[in-house]
Amino acid sequence: MAEKLNYHPNLFASSLRAQKSKTIAVIIPEIDNNFFSLVIKGIEEIAQEKGYHVLIYLTHENVQKEISFTRNLQSGRVDGVLISVSSETDNIDHLLELQENKIPIVFFDRVCEMLNSPKVTTDDYESGYNATEHLIKNGCKRIAYLQVSKTLSIGKNRLKGYLHALEKNNISYDEVLVINGKNKNEDNYAVIKNLLTSDNPPDGIFASVESLAITAYNVCKDLGIYIPDNLKIISFSNLITAPLLSPSLTTITQPAFNIGKEAATILFQLLKKNSYYHKKNIVLSSTLIKRDSTGKT
Amino acid sequence: MAEKLNYHPNLFASSLRAQKSKTIAVIIPEIDNNFFSLVIKGIEEIAQEKGYHVLIYLTHENVQKEISFTRNLQSGRVDGVLISVSSETDNIDHLLELQENKIPIVFFDRVCEMLNSPKVTTDDYESGYNATEHLIKNGCKRIAYLQVSKTLSIGKNRLKGYLHALEKNNISYDEVLVINGKNKNEDNYAVIKNLLTSDNPPDGIFASVESLAITAYNVCKDLGIYIPDNLKIISFSNLITAPLLSPSLTTITQPAFNIGKEAATILFQLLKKNSYYHKKNIVLSSTLIKRDSTGKT
Repeated sequence: MAEKLNYHPNLFASSLRAQKSKTIAVIIPEIDNNFFSLVIKGIEEIAQEKGYHVLIYLTHENVQKEISFTRNLQSGRVDGVLISVSSETDNIDHLLELQENKIPIVFFDRVCEMLNSPKVTTDDYESGYNATEHLIKNGCKRIAYLQVSKTLSIGKNRLKGYLHALEKNNISYDEVLVINGKNKNEDNYAVIKNLLTSDNPPDGIFASVESLAITAYNVCKDLGIYIPDNLKIISFSNLITAPLLSPSLTTITQPAFNIGKEAATILFQLLKKNSYYHKKNIVLSSTLIKRDSTGKT
Repeated sequence: MAEKLNYHPNLFASSLRAQKSKTIAVIIPEIDNNFFSLVIKGIEEIAQEKGYHVLIYLTHENVQKEISFTRNLQSGRVDGVLISVSSETDNIDHLLELQENKIPIVFFDRVCEMLNSPKVTTDDYESGYNATEHLIKNGCKRIAYLQVSKTLSIGKNRLKGYLHALEKNNISYDEVLVINGKNKNEDNYAVIKNLLTSDNPPDGIFASVESLAITAYNVCKDLGIYIPDNLKIISFSNLITAPLLSPSLTTITQPAFNIGKEAATILFQLLKKNSYYHKKNIVLSSTLIKRDSTGKT
């Protein structure tokens, strides 16, 4: 045994794994977003029932951090992983390595289609369609779509819904109206200001994440653009202050707490069965909540 | 060695500790609060420079979870701990055990005075005094103070500032105006509604945490109480939407990012020196940002 120890430093890790760490990891891109805090609450409700600890890892949208975390997790620190990938993630080698180390993965919200792991998402295509159509019904003819990045699964599906709604309403697509967010708030502020002060500004904004809607509100406040009179805004958001904003923000609200519960429930099923692959996809519905920022029709 | 292993299951842990886990833990009561997300960003900036991973543990204000986490950390999972204690924490045995296991602790914001560990806080007494005096200068004569719990260090110091400002302005203290928050938002809603519909309601609210200010906004909206005309509100807050609320919220804003940087810097100094005790207290200043909810005088 002692000899083995000398040659296999990872034995510590394997032993810990055999013992079960009674811990699961949640890897998320950010926390200054009510969606993720609600998901975590849902995950923790299930983990607590099972007597498990939850560790939270923040990637800050940095794929290098995500890779470093997942390598670190291979050493048996946790029994399973729940992940919503960073906006930079376009290669899944680090996630495959986790699976090879027999650590089950469940994706939620931001998923990797290439990986044969369970996924819990929301009806992003339908929500994108409904959000865009809601703006059109309220009179918008030139709608901008703001997303975190062009690589994310959720962004792509919401974009499809946006494009389809435009097409169905005979509004031609203008690529300058599809904006990919930056990592820094200041940069997003500049991009949105640029958009709103252009020769042909949008009359509606559909934001795929609340931070971009908040930045749009700030730009409008500073430029004296009235919402909803001059510009209508709808956003994916679980922001607790959405009803209290001036004006109150129309949102597509995801069932974040239930997403967390579902994802954790699936992970514990995998752990119980000692299984690492499972083709299970759960799609939950989001809700469009009409408020003053779109004129409330 | 093999024999030892049989009798000392913790050897795994000790060995890992000797190897250094290159990981630090951050234990916080909640994340749906911009203060803590900013602190974490500050901590991560320093940890990244040092090549360390950051693990986040959420207690949800539950001291049993806090105890369970700290016990779990004794096994060498992390090299050091940064903590802001839960509102239920009034015994420090679990933190003493961490120190005995040679894992250094640095407190931030919510500290335990009894423990001889470094502490990074803000000028809570002065901020409580200034917030209360700001309300008085704007005409308030009956000011409620809403806090998370009566046991927390920060709440006590802010209360002292509140009481001193009342006294200095010859306003008598009424104990019914000091409200301790509950764990559930619904319960806080009921308590604040009760307060605002009482025979002798307050004309000002000083909230020691943003979630209580948001709940007060919701109660006012539902009851048709106008802010700031009927009721003025000031709150400790790092809420990114504070300037966008209807009306914009006057805040005492803590330097959350720098709190995280300072606390992490001290922790890495302790780790470098292999030291576990250190009488170092850093007090940073908060800023009062006047907005419409207090009438802006």
